[in-house]
Amino acid sequence: MSQASPPLAPIRMAMVGGGAGSFIGPVHRMAAELDRQIVLVAGAFSSDPARSAETGRSLGLADDRIHADWRAMLAAEAGRADGAELVAIVTPNHLHLPVARAAIAAGLHVVSDKPATATLAEALELRDALAGTDRVYALTYTYTGYPMIRRARAMIADGALGEVRRIIVDYPQGWLAEPIENQGSKQAAWRADPARAGIGGCIGDIGVHAFNLAEYVSGAKVAEFVADLGSVVPGRRLDDDCNMLLRFDNGARGALLASQIATGERNDLTIRIQGSKAGIAWSHATATMLTITGLDGETRIQHGGTEATARLPVGHPEGFIEAFANIYRDTAAAIRGADGIVDALVPGIAAGVRSMRFVQRAVESSAGRAGWTRLED
Amino acid sequence: MSQASPPLAPIRMAMVGGGAGSFIGPVHRMAAELDRQIVLVAGAFSSDPARSAETGRSLGLADDRIHADWRAMLAAEAGRADGAELVAIVTPNHLHLPVARAAIAAGLHVVSDKPATATLAEALELRDALAGTDRVYALTYTYTGYPMIRRARAMIADGALGEVRRIIVDYPQGWLAEPIENQGSKQAAWRADPARAGIGGCIGDIGVHAFNLAEYVSGAKVAEFVADLGSVVPGRRLDDDCNMLLRFDNGARGALLASQIATGERNDLTIRIQGSKAGIAWSHATATMLTITGLDGETRIQHGGTEATARLPVGHPEGFIEAFANIYRDTAAAIRGADGIVDALVPGIAAGVRSMRFVQRAVESSAGRAGWTRLED
Amino acid sequence: MSQASPPLAPIRMAMVGGGAGSFIGPVHRMAAELDRQIVLVAGAFSSDPARSAETGRSLGLADDRIHADWRAMLAAEAGRADGAELVAIVTPNHLHLPVARAAIAAGLHVVSDKPATATLAEALELRDALAGTDRVYALTYTYTGYPMIRRARAMIADGALGEVRRIIVDYPQGWLAEPIENQGSKQAAWRADPARAGIGGCIGDIGVHAFNLAEYVSGAKVAEFVADLGSVVPGRRLDDDCNMLLRFDNGARGALLASQIATGERNDLTIRIQGSKAGIAWSHATATMLTITGLDGETRIQHGGTEATARLPVGHPEGFIEAFANIYRDTAAAIRGADGIVDALVPGIAAGVRSMRFVQRAVESSAGRAGWTRLED
Amino acid sequence: MSQASPPLAPIRMAMVGGGAGSFIGPVHRMAAELDRQIVLVAGAFSSDPARSAETGRSLGLADDRIHADWRAMLAAEAGRADGAELVAIVTPNHLHLPVARAAIAAGLHVVSDKPATATLAEALELRDALAGTDRVYALTYTYTGYPMIRRARAMIADGALGEVRRIIVDYPQGWLAEPIENQGSKQAAWRADPARAGIGGCIGDIGVHAFNLAEYVSGAKVAEFVADLGSVVPGRRLDDDCNMLLRFDNGARGALLASQIATGERNDLTIRIQGSKAGIAWSHATATMLTITGLDGETRIQHGGTEATARLPVGHPEGFIEAFANIYRDTAAAIRGADGIVDALVPGIAAGVRSMRFVQRAVESSAGRAGWTRLED
Repeated sequence: MSQASPPLAPIRMAMVGGGAGSFIGPVHRMAAELDRQIVLVAGAFSSDPARSAETGRSLGLADDRIHADWRAMLAAEAGRADGAELVAIVTPNHLHLPVARAAIAAGLHVVSDKPATATLAEALELRDALAGTDRVYALTYTYTGYPMIRRARAMIADGALGEVRRIIVDYPQGWLAEPIENQGSKQAAWRADPARAGIGGCIGDIGVHAFNLAEYVSGAKVAEFVADLGSVVPGRRLDDDCNMLLRFDNGARGALLASQIATGERNDLTIRIQGSKAGIAWSHATATMLTITGLDGETRIQHGGTEATARLPVGHPEGFIEAFANIYRDTAAAIRGADGIVDALVPGIAAGVRSMRFVQRAVESSAGRAGWTRLED
Repeated sequence: MSQASPPLAPIRMAMVGGGAGSFIGPVHRMAAELDRQIVLVAGAFSSDPARSAETGRSLGLADDRIHADWRAMLAAEAGRADGAELVAIVTPNHLHLPVARAAIAAGLHVVSDKPATATLAEALELRDALAGTDRVYALTYTYTGYPMIRRARAMIADGALGEVRRIIVDYPQGWLAEPIENQGSKQAAWRADPARAGIGGCIGDIGVHAFNLAEYVSGAKVAEFVADLGSVVPGRRLDDDCNMLLRFDNGARGALLASQIATGERNDLTIRIQGSKAGIAWSHATATMLTITGLDGETRIQHGGTEATARLPVGHPEGFIEAFANIYRDTAAAIRGADGIVDALVPGIAAGVRSMRFVQRAVESSAGRAGWTRLED
Repeated sequence: MSQASPPLAPIRMAMVGGGAGSFIGPVHRMAAELDRQIVLVAGAFSSDPARSAETGRSLGLADDRIHADWRAMLAAEAGRADGAELVAIVTPNHLHLPVARAAIAAGLHVVSDKPATATLAEALELRDALAGTDRVYALTYTYTGYPMIRRARAMIADGALGEVRRIIVDYPQGWLAEPIENQGSKQAAWRADPARAGIGGCIGDIGVHAFNLAEYVSGAKVAEFVADLGSVVPGRRLDDDCNMLLRFDNGARGALLASQIATGERNDLTIRIQGSKAGIAWSHATATMLTITGLDGETRIQHGGTEATARLPVGHPEGFIEAFANIYRDTAAAIRGADGIVDALVPGIAAGVRSMRFVQRAVESSAGRAGWTRLED
Repeated sequence: MSQASPPLAPIRMAMVGGGAGSFIGPVHRMAAELDRQIVLVAGAFSSDPARSAETGRSLGLADDRIHADWRAMLAAEAGRADGAELVAIVTPNHLHLPVARAAIAAGLHVVSDKPATATLAEALELRDALAGTDRVYALTYTYTGYPMIRRARAMIADGALGEVRRIIVDYPQGWLAEPIENQGSKQAAWRADPARAGIGGCIGDIGVHAFNLAEYVSGAKVAEFVADLGSVVPGRRLDDDCNMLLRFDNGARGALLASQIATGERNDLTIRIQGSKAGIAWSHATATMLTITGLDGETRIQHGGTEATARLPVGHPEGFIEAFANIYRDTAAAIRGADGIVDALVPGIAAGVRSMRFVQRAVESSAGRAGWTRLED
């Protein structure tokens, strides 16, 4: 064999959370490993030892890499030459801060599921913890990993829409239309519990996706808003239905609609941005397409698969896992030293703080039935 | 020939407005006549005699039925044994009140294009004018004529959605993304002129459609709102982009989005209503379909063409003219004495007043950057 | 009033067929009258006097213009100064020839529903009857009236697709998936009866639409075919499911699929044509759109409503009746003396003969399980 | 840690083919490893040593697991305790047989990209080679891995459609609309070369997918066909455009359309099957949906994500890689001893032989312009 380049050494990753019944844990694992840039080597998948072991063994991990206590895992990995370099945090929100803080303190990189933390105060604390380190901290705002979202963002940055005037983001789900948090759904139970989810229900679970996406794609920043957050299902303690008016720093108007009681809706996040010269639209249900409408009245649809980074050619759909994997692939590059990724291409703690401020202000403003509210003071 | 029933005698209609270059005048004419219940016999199509004559002759009208002055036309028709029984008002908004008032005073029935009038005060005046008469007054809120809209309304009234919780209505157009009112567009020119359009721009032109439709389909009434109306295109005097949060009298939350600067959008009014048991969605671009989503996760699409009143079987699309014609057909039945049509199936002056109140309060509330505002005092 | 042009005198039309329960009769009537170029003045709507009277009176016709015997109607109209100038034939197929022949002999113009006749021999006879007269004979191949079909045709004629290579036309219906001809469906009963429908079932009812459309849009002519026609529903005497391979005179390959037992399908005729430079696609379910795909991989959608002949602007859907009305409007122009309409824009007897040859050869070829069969000898 | 179950030991896989520029090689690798049931340990990615090394090192393989000669790789792996247990064959078609034969002889399991071989004779030879061994041989007919395809198949097997009457499968691509095999496209070059692709061009590349899918979903078998295969692009030696009529053993009629010169088409394989009670439709472009149309005229759409084997919940799209991974996951289970997978859920050599017979007969029949041709003698 010739000796052009040495074999790739994948980044070793540990996971906190993601035990049996987890939705997002397996997504992180599949996405992280998809491109062989990262390999899962250890996990504290559940605080229940048997459950954690079941998950770890099903993934082929040796018993000494499987833990019930995430602190014990960090300690054990720190003691190994082949210990984890990166921690993926896929727990309910209330653990995001303590795990991230400890991981950073241990010199590890972090990929955290969104939102950054359970409260704004925690997000600020995490920002402080990251200041002065060179550790990578990436937030998996999934939709920022979709190639057509990135294409839309680049087009807008290049002026393809002219002046951005209108930004509508709409995230309907219906799975919480009934009080399934009381009917055995683990996924619903923690999201509906302020002790584990934090201050936001729907707004913290999917509203942050919509908020982050609106800013990510448009390049504009929310300056003011009016929020109407409701707890529609009787007995629910956190919001499950959110409508907001938005004003952006560039003068654009917009709206953010997010609901988990939109009965029968699945997960079809859509974003539409119109400018003085053209408009774009993207829908999660047709994620490989980007629709562009111009002043000439013709609708143009661009199809994914032509990017240099595409894994598949046109007509062969990449999906949710691949979008997630794009974030992991970029994060791996950042860990290996690439510039211009975190905070630029991949959301980091700045976006995390901003989103938590958005959640907190929206919850407070809505509770007070306030009118127009500034996002920053 | 047997003598089962005498031949139908169509209702004789005169038209005010609808000269060359009009969009909605020909729609009213085609719709009114589609089912041979109504026949156009006279018109004051334009205040320019040559233009009015050109239009009237192209329709086969005799010269003595063609006028430039609508008052002269009403007088002339009143003097004929075969004079008009019904007036269709298809002018810019500022003429809606004077023509309707005069027609009613002359004992004629009225079909008026929306909105009822140019201001709330005018609408109240028209309501007073109608009080105590038995003349039919119908407003062509086009979308209430679509069979699938009526089916959705009936389903909701029958409880198919359970408790209605969420109402989102979204009406994007892009044709005013540039200042075409200054570039020769007659359609844009009057809509952008407060003297002819009244106090509302986008909100009065299409926002009222969205508002009326939300109430028509859901059966709920808007109780409170927050409005954000903008005049986005430089130099435009009336609003062209509107976002609103809604609260309904039954507790449902909602949003109304209407824009005429949504670049590249055509006219795809959509409405989505979710209840505790199911959701429905309708889109103008696929007007013959009604989408129903239930708690079981299956999407069901019902197709138009099965109604007893359908002109065409399933798979043979009826369009905008036919929706309009449904309103005219129902109005003809009301004129012939049928009960339960105006204010029930077809919007009348009550809906007209309500819509004008909506427009006026939204404009005022938005101008004052008010928060939550009650629609009624 | 100024005297620029005299009032339009609409062309007087009589109708044969179209009594209660007819689908296509009312379509012809609404379409003919939509633009006020034509007016229905008489009819022999049914051979049952009471039924014919019921229909005629519901349309406001005087009793002396309503007949049960179409020959009597032709005679009566011939004796009137205001007699019909045009006959619309909307009967089952077996009456197309005798009515058309008599109408032409009486000096009337003819609009006939498709197919031209019940057999090829009849079509040839009708062609002979038309030779040497100057009467207009138009066939309502509905889909040729859709604006986007005409746009596609013009684009292809202008070379937008390069060399046409592939033509796929697909016409699925499901309404005959059960033997409803024996269950009270009038529409099904005559179509399934060789004495009234002629030699073709599905092939004669909708296959001819598909065949005509393929040639109309592409500009190429079917040279050879293989046909597989089945009578799938037990007891049915005519074909109800047809698949064909096509070769065109320019070398293009293609396929024609037509079925009336495609369970649950409504009427979504689609055509796709690919050339060396681009492809186009049109679907009846989204009739106001035309999809164009080029070598660059982008999908472009053009929207109806921009044509000079459009009745409605972009975003306001015209439907089936308006497509039909386009054919009537063009036919009226031809009757008034315009050149370049029949056989060019609107199918006439040449297309009628060609379609009947297609039906007859397809039926025979399929029955003999023949392979490649030439359409012309 | 408790000791419920030992850690999973993933199946060790070697790959032949899949060097830089390969489309399908990386898909196999990602799919095989997605669920941690299989791990790539070795490869002969290219006959060019530098290229093979580049690929192998980019995947983190040690140099002693990277080869240029696949025979050398098989030998080397056979000599290791941790040697490969499974070979993935992702080469051009002409190597499928020799590699598979050698792998089986070496006691390895095989996953092969489709088609099984380059000719029918080769497929029969491979079938003989497999007879008498217990090695797993799986063919990656990708579309059989889509969950909604499997759901459709199960529904039909359960009688949800009643008697199956009509099967239409349509596979359009446009990427070979120009002679890119002469313009530097590696993917096109081997597919257009009979020495590497075998006897079939389009029919062997994507026609076999369509053929296999029609039988897989419907449960019916093609009995007879008429084939029209063309080499449309000047100078192309193999077919690039295929239309076929089909008759199935249960009496159903159908058609198979496959083209690689359908300009602008991406890869939207669709299948529609209608029975006496209902119809189903599936399209690759909306792969997570299954459309069901019944006699009641309502369209029902079922959404993926509810299967026990789903990796993601409803509304979170799985794509092409995940469909591929389903085949690998099932194959891993078969290798671990599960019954009822190969030939039942996952196509094996029986489907491989059948497809190659289909290709060979179609090519011959078309070349001879034959009519109806039996698939089996």
